[in-house]
Amino acid sequence: MTTTEHPAPASADRTDLRLLDAWWRAANYLAVGQIYLMDNPLLREPLAPEHVKPRLLGHWGTTPGLTFLWAHLNRVIVRDDLHVLYVTGPGHGGPAVVATAWLEGTYSERYSRVSQDADGMKELFRQFSFPGGIPSHAAPETPGSIHEGGELGYALAHAYGAAFDNPDLLVACVIGDGEAETGPLAASWQGNKFLHPVHDGTVLPILHLNGYKIANATVTARITREELIAQLEGHGHRLYVVEGGFDGEDPMAVHERMAATMDEIVAEIARIRTRAAEQLAAEGRVDRPRWPALILHTPKGWTGPREVDGLPVEGTWRAHQVPLAGTRDNPEHRAQLEAWLRSYRPEELFDDDGAPRPELAALTPSGDARMSAIPHANGGVLLRDLKLPDFTQHAVDVPRPGATQASATGTLGAWLADVVRANPTTFRIVGPDETASNRLQAVFEATDRQFVGEILPTDEHTAQHGRVLEVLSEHLCQGWLEGYVLTGRHGLFNCYEAFIHIVDSMFNQHAKWLEASRHIPWRRPIASLNYLLSSHVWRQDHNGFSHQDPGFIDHVLNKKAEVVRVYLPPDANTLLSTMDHCLRTRDYVNVVVAGKNPGPQWLSVDEAIAHCARGIGIWDWASTDGGAEPDVVLGCAGDVPTIETLAAAALLREHLPQLKVRVVNVVDLLRLQDAREHPHGLADREFDALFTTDKPVVFAHHGYPSLIHQLTYRRTNHSNIHVRGYKEEGTTTTPFDMVMRNDLDRFHLVADVIDRVPGLAVKHAALRQHMLDERLRCRRHAYTYGVDAPDVADWVWPG
Amino acid sequence: MTTTEHPAPASADRTDLRLLDAWWRAANYLAVGQIYLMDNPLLREPLAPEHVKPRLLGHWGTTPGLTFLWAHLNRVIVRDDLHVLYVTGPGHGGPAVVATAWLEGTYSERYSRVSQDADGMKELFRQFSFPGGIPSHAAPETPGSIHEGGELGYALAHAYGAAFDNPDLLVACVIGDGEAETGPLAASWQGNKFLHPVHDGTVLPILHLNGYKIANATVTARITREELIAQLEGHGHRLYVVEGGFDGEDPMAVHERMAATMDEIVAEIARIRTRAAEQLAAEGRVDRPRWPALILHTPKGWTGPREVDGLPVEGTWRAHQVPLAGTRDNPEHRAQLEAWLRSYRPEELFDDDGAPRPELAALTPSGDARMSAIPHANGGVLLRDLKLPDFTQHAVDVPRPGATQASATGTLGAWLADVVRANPTTFRIVGPDETASNRLQAVFEATDRQFVGEILPTDEHTAQHGRVLEVLSEHLCQGWLEGYVLTGRHGLFNCYEAFIHIVDSMFNQHAKWLEASRHIPWRRPIASLNYLLSSHVWRQDHNGFSHQDPGFIDHVLNKKAEVVRVYLPPDANTLLSTMDHCLRTRDYVNVVVAGKNPGPQWLSVDEAIAHCARGIGIWDWASTDGGAEPDVVLGCAGDVPTIETLAAAALLREHLPQLKVRVVNVVDLLRLQDAREHPHGLADREFDALFTTDKPVVFAHHGYPSLIHQLTYRRTNHSNIHVRGYKEEGTTTTPFDMVMRNDLDRFHLVADVIDRVPGLAVKHAALRQHMLDERLRCRRHAYTYGVDAPDVADWVWPG
Repeated sequence: MTTTEHPAPASADRTDLRLLDAWWRAANYLAVGQIYLMDNPLLREPLAPEHVKPRLLGHWGTTPGLTFLWAHLNRVIVRDDLHVLYVTGPGHGGPAVVATAWLEGTYSERYSRVSQDADGMKELFRQFSFPGGIPSHAAPETPGSIHEGGELGYALAHAYGAAFDNPDLLVACVIGDGEAETGPLAASWQGNKFLHPVHDGTVLPILHLNGYKIANATVTARITREELIAQLEGHGHRLYVVEGGFDGEDPMAVHERMAATMDEIVAEIARIRTRAAEQLAAEGRVDRPRWPALILHTPKGWTGPREVDGLPVEGTWRAHQVPLAGTRDNPEHRAQLEAWLRSYRPEELFDDDGAPRPELAALTPSGDARMSAIPHANGGVLLRDLKLPDFTQHAVDVPRPGATQASATGTLGAWLADVVRANPTTFRIVGPDETASNRLQAVFEATDRQFVGEILPTDEHTAQHGRVLEVLSEHLCQGWLEGYVLTGRHGLFNCYEAFIHIVDSMFNQHAKWLEASRHIPWRRPIASLNYLLSSHVWRQDHNGFSHQDPGFIDHVLNKKAEVVRVYLPPDANTLLSTMDHCLRTRDYVNVVVAGKNPGPQWLSVDEAIAHCARGIGIWDWASTDGGAEPDVVLGCAGDVPTIETLAAAALLREHLPQLKVRVVNVVDLLRLQDAREHPHGLADREFDALFTTDKPVVFAHHGYPSLIHQLTYRRTNHSNIHVRGYKEEGTTTTPFDMVMRNDLDRFHLVADVIDRVPGLAVKHAALRQHMLDERLRCRRHAYTYGVDAPDVADWVWPG
Repeated sequence: MTTTEHPAPASADRTDLRLLDAWWRAANYLAVGQIYLMDNPLLREPLAPEHVKPRLLGHWGTTPGLTFLWAHLNRVIVRDDLHVLYVTGPGHGGPAVVATAWLEGTYSERYSRVSQDADGMKELFRQFSFPGGIPSHAAPETPGSIHEGGELGYALAHAYGAAFDNPDLLVACVIGDGEAETGPLAASWQGNKFLHPVHDGTVLPILHLNGYKIANATVTARITREELIAQLEGHGHRLYVVEGGFDGEDPMAVHERMAATMDEIVAEIARIRTRAAEQLAAEGRVDRPRWPALILHTPKGWTGPREVDGLPVEGTWRAHQVPLAGTRDNPEHRAQLEAWLRSYRPEELFDDDGAPRPELAALTPSGDARMSAIPHANGGVLLRDLKLPDFTQHAVDVPRPGATQASATGTLGAWLADVVRANPTTFRIVGPDETASNRLQAVFEATDRQFVGEILPTDEHTAQHGRVLEVLSEHLCQGWLEGYVLTGRHGLFNCYEAFIHIVDSMFNQHAKWLEASRHIPWRRPIASLNYLLSSHVWRQDHNGFSHQDPGFIDHVLNKKAEVVRVYLPPDANTLLSTMDHCLRTRDYVNVVVAGKNPGPQWLSVDEAIAHCARGIGIWDWASTDGGAEPDVVLGCAGDVPTIETLAAAALLREHLPQLKVRVVNVVDLLRLQDAREHPHGLADREFDALFTTDKPVVFAHHGYPSLIHQLTYRRTNHSNIHVRGYKEEGTTTTPFDMVMRNDLDRFHLVADVIDRVPGLAVKHAALRQHMLDERLRCRRHAYTYGVDAPDVADWVWPG
């Protein structure tokens, strides 16, 4: 394990570096300008109070490091014709990446009002963190970014996601030392065990050590350098360290060390990739490379004010946001700001029109090679439709409802294997070691788990290259898939339903990215992020209470209707049809919840397609209303609630043959919502036609009951909708006991009908009691024998 | 950095180890019995099909490693009189920790039906993963556990949480190599930078490397041993490695190595603590110790079937759950199971009655020293009330509503400083570097951030020992606090509102732990887990859209009513009163959302106390209904919605003086819910008295509007409740523009009233238009000047 620290200046040419320094100064000037100025952008007159924004918002601390790295990457991009995607972990450094995008011309191409001249610079400054302007973080609005850095922790996972199946891409991922304390980032170092050095691209992790978070030192800055290097070497990297800028060190010296180190890193990456390609050709396998990683240690707020009001600022947490707070009212602060801005010598950097001087352009790559313009950061431009094989070939034969037993996800798995075969470089399945547990193992007939750590002969379905990525970290699964779809590819995340809450907050950030992107004309639609949640609440009887939580769909539905979709297919064929649809969509988050256990099948594939197209519908074959107004509607959403609802319908048919029962099944949960609230929402007229305007509705829902009320509260008949669902009653028990504990079982649903249909309660009290006795019988059986009574476990639709 | 691998047998006595091996065999026998048997527990007759459970559920793979470590820890506990808390990261190893608890007698003490005899053993076996029985994971039902291992990743954070302020405690934390892949666990290694070697206890991380997850190799098992050790040394540990049991190695040889290593570790811990105490006494500071960590590398499913149906099982992922699946129907599997069980020689382990033979007791610690009985794992028995200083001393003087400006969290901070002073060893504040950002910095007058990494002279409020723990990982904050309260202490987690979603899933697990614990008589109530969410959605105008999400309270309310509480105090004095209440409660999760920015104050401290006691109430001073039936009710929950509602009330008073307006403020959100749904819920009669049965209600809510509908959908007047709240409209803008974008602003609320009170719409169309024009004026001002118009930013209640 060799560490290269402070290498001697090597190939870098001194003149180039003076130019590079000018470019860096320009970027820093533009960043400081964004934080402070609303007028006089080129400082062609003395700085006056009215030139300064009344409210100062932005993050200076990380900015000079981000611009420094950008400038040095530009040098090697131009020289070696590299394709580099820049992932800005310290997303608070919005001023940095907006500045570089403007300097490269991309910003003005995307936003013509922010032209590359004095007027445009003034607008660039004004709009930053300004009402009606742009966010203070790297964001969808930022050219060149796939990464919103507001919530920290996901940079390196995004970087690996972007690199998969992009062999020509180098992803330079800057990680702040604050972000390095988060769990998701700490786990992300494992990514290099999954990255193939020939078929995938390269990730260069750059730990930007500037020592401080908002108000506090960072942990990595306060352990020994030896410990820090051991950690990263232990994660399989070869470490390079560039340190400088402290105690007033001339930046030129730091440029020299950085340039020499960057040259070594780029050469090392090229060597690794060449060697791997040769080895792959010769041996059919590769050694796991020891990829380079860089530690850049510079002062927080480097080149900013050293001291303000007698307190140290540069190199401390005080440089985190706005180092000079009183620049509008405090002449001393304003003078300090003016000196700071002038220290970058703007007159050398911008011409009379305010455009960057032509000599700076020499360092700026052109066209798509600019990191601010690389197509991968606007993945929609690279996106191609998946080739989707005909899913009906995998459909389960359902001659009549309930006649066939099948596993929904098992059936899906066989089709997904075909999807994998048809799309060998643009589709990935991620999951936390649960692909087989979720019964998708058929995909392993078409591909393997990709892993470049040691593989033993006893391992199954594991290879150095494959479409499935399994790691026991939902954060990594989510982060990799986000990075993959944001750069223009497709994928599916399969997960236990309860544990998908682990990524609630990552989902939030991705959904917000999609919401914002829809309103940015130059951002092209990307593939939807697809979740398949299996091993769901009703089939976690064996793992027990800790594995039971159907609330992710509630969480999802707090996001804007335009980006979220939720599907609860009741059987295998509807799951096939649903997933085929989801994989064709753009710019959504699709959540599909489906069971893995063998269960009764209801719809033939043609019926399934029609039902999924409508998203909701009356199941005539299970209903006894003969097309007329029913006495009661049994609604259901989700596979297990559908079974219980149909069993209840069968019981009602047997015991109360005169009762007109209508069964309505919901696949697309958003059909329940008002059309004014969600684009999938049924018009009131349609909803009323299904659920009536005044008859009791007993609704069996997959998740928490409140969600159905939330979705339907504006409906005419809302006050008659009675919902059963999961109410946090669970333990280690049997499947039927799970539904009983939550009063979602067939017997209780029948009792609910008796309670709610006028006139039944008194007349059929005995039947009601019989139903409750049946529950006792079932529980006794389960508690005695450890399994469900056969008639409920293997119940078949009698129709 | 020295690593001790395979140390030579040292102090351990050979006879002892044979006994220890017997103890281990007994535990393994009891674990296998739990997974398989429902009768014939001591194998006193040949194993017959009916002795085997019809449904086999449980996790064998991790079990022998857990029992092995338990046995070896017992040896040093007995010898050295240690206090050890065992944290079972591989919580799936429920059979292991239940077995050891029974072997130690604790299980029978807690559950008399599971006696320490043949009948009890039969019940022990039957109940495991059986309907009406116990979960398959370590769980609240498990004596000796503070940790439910269903969702992986939190073991090491829990361990550190348990160790803080427990100087006499050694927390042995077993981490599965699967769990080691998760983000929260990866971050948890940082804990040793925060643990004081004199004032806090010791954490011994034990990475149990058995190579496989459910279906797949683990990453840590497939990197070089050199890399793995470098990682953990880089995290500041001195590494000890015990490896064995492979290729049929005699377990006695592994016992010898383990015993010798355990002796070294225990001695090293003692040396470290002594040295630290001496140094602290001499220098007033300590060096950060290089704490021991252990890697135990044994085969997955060690001592289980080597092969089943011709496929390798021991030492592979196939040993993860139930190695022999067909033991009831397949005679070959059953014979193999019998041979496996008999390989532990039960006749040597249990006496004629089925109790553990007395010689095994020699290895079992007694009383509270048993890891299965240590009081820290039932924290309620150690819990003492906090000493809570009089919060009224810190109250803001509010001579009349709106007359005073104050920061709510800033006011709270001063009282929290007193809480810290009064409770120097039993109260901690955790947060992700946001204590000052959330304006609680007054606590730093009473204490410091605790950090045992390097501290520089320029650092502020940072010391080796203090009450505040700040790390940029919400996972660690949550995990530490959970470990701290589960072991009988108190604390507060302060966090940005949006980012608390990072721990949604951890909250789930903790809430489920509390729900289950309430029904376990021997578990004593613990302190509530308290969240203070600040920097909330309405004041994230500067950080923008990625920082805006008020949905944590929605997530929380999916859990059982008996364990969750949500408070939205509208000003400083109500926040003081609320937090004083929360810190007195037990077994809840309290979520308090409060702003940090200076804002108008409404209630004197006496009024605040009375208002918080009711949780909801009419604000007469803001109402114009004169105690009679109003024309419209303005409801509000949350500080910013309260300001807008009061401003709307003032506008209505000015422009529509005849209109009878009632203002109702909600502090305790659950008051809105039906009394049948939540213990805090208002009776219908009380609710109707506040909100009327038929008048329009315009409700301004802090969070997503749907929550108010969810809470009130059973109320008489529900169909007239019109809710404004956050509807995912946000960006980087001004505070007032944030409320405008979501139609929660005063002008829109007035328009809502005009739209909803019969007769106003036509008559006051001009006023309505004027209100909408006011919005335009405000937006124009913000977009032009970058700040809100003074009249809305500095608005004062005119009353």
